Amino acid sequence: MFSSWVFLVKKCYQDTDTSLQSSIITKVKGVTFTNTSELGERLWDVADYVIPPQGENVFFVITNLVVTPNQRQETCAESASVPDALCYEDSDCPPGEPVAAGNGVRTGRCLREGSAQKGTCEIFAWCPVETRSRPTKPLLGEAKDFTVYIKNFIRFPKFNFSKTNVLDTTDRTFLKSCKFSPENPYCPIFRLGSVVSWTGSNFQEIAVQGGVIGIQIEWDCDLDKAPSECYPRYYFNRLDNRFSGNSISSGYNFRFAKYYRDAAGVEFRTLFKAYGIRFDVMVNGKAGKFNIIPTIINVGSGVALMGVGSFFCDLVLIYFIKKSHFYRDKKYEEVRDLEVLAQMAESSQQSVAPDAAGLAEQPEAQDEGGAQKENGCVCGQLLQPARSGHQGNGKVNVEQLQSLQTVEA
Amino acid sequence: MFSSWVFLVKKCYQDTDTSLQSSIITKVKGVTFTNTSELGERLWDVADYVIPPQGENVFFVITNLVVTPNQRQETCAESASVPDALCYEDSDCPPGEPVAAGNGVRTGRCLREGSAQKGTCEIFAWCPVETRSRPTKPLLGEAKDFTVYIKNFIRFPKFNFSKTNVLDTTDRTFLKSCKFSPENPYCPIFRLGSVVSWTGSNFQEIAVQGGVIGIQIEWDCDLDKAPSECYPRYYFNRLDNRFSGNSISSGYNFRFAKYYRDAAGVEFRTLFKAYGIRFDVMVNGKAGKFNIIPTIINVGSGVALMGVGSFFCDLVLIYFIKKSHFYRDKKYEEVRDLEVLAQMAESSQQSVAPDAAGLAEQPEAQDEGGAQKENGCVCGQLLQPARSGHQGNGKVNVEQLQSLQTVEA
Amino acid sequence: MFSSWVFLVKKCYQDTDTSLQSSIITKVKGVTFTNTSELGERLWDVADYVIPPQGENVFFVITNLVVTPNQRQETCAESASVPDALCYEDSDCPPGEPVAAGNGVRTGRCLREGSAQKGTCEIFAWCPVETRSRPTKPLLGEAKDFTVYIKNFIRFPKFNFSKTNVLDTTDRTFLKSCKFSPENPYCPIFRLGSVVSWTGSNFQEIAVQGGVIGIQIEWDCDLDKAPSECYPRYYFNRLDNRFSGNSISSGYNFRFAKYYRDAAGVEFRTLFKAYGIRFDVMVNGKAGKFNIIPTIINVGSGVALMGVGSFFCDLVLIYFIKKSHFYRDKKYEEVRDLEVLAQMAESSQQSVAPDAAGLAEQPEAQDEGGAQKENGCVCGQLLQPARSGHQGNGKVNVEQLQSLQTVEA
Repeated sequence: MFSSWVFLVKKCYQDTDTSLQSSIITKVKGVTFTNTSELGERLWDVADYVIPPQGENVFFVITNLVVTPNQRQETCAESASVPDALCYEDSDCPPGEPVAAGNGVRTGRCLREGSAQKGTCEIFAWCPVETRSRPTKPLLGEAKDFTVYIKNFIRFPKFNFSKTNVLDTTDRTFLKSCKFSPENPYCPIFRLGSVVSWTGSNFQEIAVQGGVIGIQIEWDCDLDKAPSECYPRYYFNRLDNRFSGNSISSGYNFRFAKYYRDAAGVEFRTLFKAYGIRFDVMVNGKAGKFNIIPTIINVGSGVALMGVGSFFCDLVLIYFIKKSHFYRDKKYEEVRDLEVLAQMAESSQQSVAPDAAGLAEQPEAQDEGGAQKENGCVCGQLLQPARSGHQGNGKVNVEQLQSLQTVEA
Repeated sequence: MFSSWVFLVKKCYQDTDTSLQSSIITKVKGVTFTNTSELGERLWDVADYVIPPQGENVFFVITNLVVTPNQRQETCAESASVPDALCYEDSDCPPGEPVAAGNGVRTGRCLREGSAQKGTCEIFAWCPVETRSRPTKPLLGEAKDFTVYIKNFIRFPKFNFSKTNVLDTTDRTFLKSCKFSPENPYCPIFRLGSVVSWTGSNFQEIAVQGGVIGIQIEWDCDLDKAPSECYPRYYFNRLDNRFSGNSISSGYNFRFAKYYRDAAGVEFRTLFKAYGIRFDVMVNGKAGKFNIIPTIINVGSGVALMGVGSFFCDLVLIYFIKKSHFYRDKKYEEVRDLEVLAQMAESSQQSVAPDAAGLAEQPEAQDEGGAQKENGCVCGQLLQPARSGHQGNGKVNVEQLQSLQTVEA
Repeated sequence: MFSSWVFLVKKCYQDTDTSLQSSIITKVKGVTFTNTSELGERLWDVADYVIPPQGENVFFVITNLVVTPNQRQETCAESASVPDALCYEDSDCPPGEPVAAGNGVRTGRCLREGSAQKGTCEIFAWCPVETRSRPTKPLLGEAKDFTVYIKNFIRFPKFNFSKTNVLDTTDRTFLKSCKFSPENPYCPIFRLGSVVSWTGSNFQEIAVQGGVIGIQIEWDCDLDKAPSECYPRYYFNRLDNRFSGNSISSGYNFRFAKYYRDAAGVEFRTLFKAYGIRFDVMVNGKAGKFNIIPTIINVGSGVALMGVGSFFCDLVLIYFIKKSHFYRDKKYEEVRDLEVLAQMAESSQQSVAPDAAGLAEQPEAQDEGGAQKENGCVCGQLLQPARSGHQGNGKVNVEQLQSLQTVEA
């Protein structure tokens, strides 16, 4: 019973394919308008705020920005927030030496404002250096209403089965208007704000200091059923250390620059320190389909291990169980002659047979020795609970193999 | 026989390493010339059409383009192809609200051309907005003659074995002139048009609307052989949903922009909607090398499971097979005294021995009891077909373990 | 003994999770100053030399550069280093045909300097074409002092356990000043020069011609212990073919361009051929935690296979060992009546029991037949060495399953 249940539930009759081929195409949509003193009125569209633009499985949406425009290669004062740049006199600023964790190379001068005792070293760098700190309100807070369309194509090479996560509908407006939700799992268009909330995070908080969110797509397909039964499941997780007390290790940001040339051909740049949300889309899956080979193997090794199990059971019953006297008496009471005894030497092994799922015929039906039959029955009845445990044992070993295959992806 | 065959074919005597370390470097070559009304005469080289430029395992080659030059942050009419932008009067355009799936934020005015009843909302956006549709003939159709050089370095850490897919030749011109083909598998330089055709796709079609192509490199190395026997195999697959009737979910494109500043320092940009082919290079592999430990383990567990198998066989033979009378008679006919009978209680187990591959000595050679010997033989002969099946069983279980290791990568 | 040792060492009592969720955030720090004839005095910061800027698990640090500034779309002579561009007369340069492995499309003219017999075809291309060769001294050789901060967050979904590789300290200055070293493994800030040297490479050599370096982070966590016992281990490997005699297949470089517009709106660009080091950060790991299910399964299948093992041992002892006469005599000397003999038919199987780890009671304690007991003991003593080997066999099979789980990641 138990072993058959394991066999069916674990689909031991199926050949499985875990070498999923997958491709992800992502496309973010949405615009937002900002009006700040640094940038003036500005509209942000996808080409502005998605990095990189290619629509791969990893993409970053800018939600907050520190902009340092018009940087040029020249000399200026290092930022006062860099500890290594503090100086009292020129000798504190050895020329040619880079400022540790700073923005440039010291020129040898100590710049002090007015009559201040303390200043910062003058550096050769992209000047002016970045001095502004992170806005406490996200610049692109409206990003929560942006959407991302995730196209996932998968293929199981062993079964030459391929599918996408996009519902194959002729209704062209479906994809133009739908939004993914637990009630609408066939629409692969996700609102960023919803994705963040499904991970248990607060959008405003992640938008201010940045973060990483994992979107997992899982395909677990039983190809013995209809293709429509093979559909993706989505899981959302926060993948950065949001609870760190250590502010230096929380959030996610990086710097990049846009380079320009002025009329004289001199290069200048705008430096951006971008905070935002990185989305990592990950796919895994497996497919199973009936195949006679694993069926035989699993039935076979199940039977093999069950055989051992029943020997062990028999042993336990005969020697360790308190009622062993009764059992031994039952087992051997009708022994009458040598030949029957010889058969009996095999009899303990017979208990393998009744459980061999693949064998339809009952062993007793072909059995002629009355003594044998009775012993077999008694054995069979007494062993029932213990044996099924051991069948479980044997089967679960197979199950363990199966679950190994599950774990890989 | 069968079990030995499995043992040899499945290389159960080898230790395997599936934790492949791999690095991919790709380099696309080729130039093409276009002459369009928007762009004029233009030459495209690698720095123009490969995104990202780093030569990683995923790279994208532009084959088609919609260019919208000289976009500036200002107000203009939204594209008429955006359903949400249609308006009859100004009140249809609530100011400050972004156009759904549009390019900007409404200013509050409805722009109608001439005396037309219907128009589109005025928006603040990167203006003018993109209005052109996809060219039906690929701009960079000549991309089919571009080549990509795929350098793959692998290392099996367990065996400290490393290799590349580049033939280690002293002939410097080989790599400058060769092209990969089924007849020339040692040249890792691929013509894009050929790669596309090997996936069964049409280059012009994929060039127009874009697509994703997977290039798989497989290493299956037997390190007991010469290093030159360890070479890569290449597989090519189309990894996007080419047969979708739903046009919104087919192809591959994305938008990116190049940003400029004019003499007054005002930013403007050229927006590109790029269609093209994304290539995903994937590597997997395993290596095997003789090792005494797995040899012992596999011989051992094979023998162990075979033991069980033979018990089961014996049982089947004695009780279920129609000729059981004959077999039982044969088995027990020469029983003469108690001691021999006692030995016989073990005799059914003897059938394990002849197959135990590791045991060179034949058990019969040390056998003194004539009755025993004959029984053993009879058993051996009768069991032959059934038993090899069960050896297979035992062995295939080991095989299953091995193939598990194969699947991971 | 051996099987218990395997059970404990291999942690067969644990449930394991190998489906690690991981995110990597990298941040490079450091500036360097160069003074070359092409570029003049220039300071390089992170936004200049790290590609791509996003701080993902793969990042590239420029260490050497060939710069070709002010390229425009026009006609010029092809580089003489391109073999296909050599010409003697105009007919060698069919117009409209791209130069193989060259930079542009032939215009039909053969450009010869002065009275030289040989020249190169005129091409339409980004002119002037790149002609400089790789500097033999790395431009950004100081990159060896740059540091990279690798933030790794992991999560084992099965146990809902998450951790980062950053020591959770309240000491804010720790991360500002520490450097990773074998003596300081809890500081995830790596000096690039040290990373290169740990792979056994020379920094100046890799900086000149480029290369790929793998940084592996391994988590092997026993969640039955304190969370602080779950920490990452780092491994560093060179992942490109450094020993190739074939210069075309060694090193790592790629070309990219920065695009500008002049006052007239004409596009020009600066082409960079960047040599440098690509770092691939890879994470794998597994976690184990006590669970009753795998404990039962492993004990069970161990016992099952041991059972087989002991049968086989018994067989070997009785028939193959030279002292078999002694053993058989010992085994059967006290046989007196039919019933005892019948018990004996089971007795060889009894040897399973003493090893069944889960069974605390000794089988002999409940045994009443003196003959049985003595036989059991003799069997037990004689079998001891052989049997533990076979238990090992059984157990190692389980061990094999476990190690399979180890291999995946």
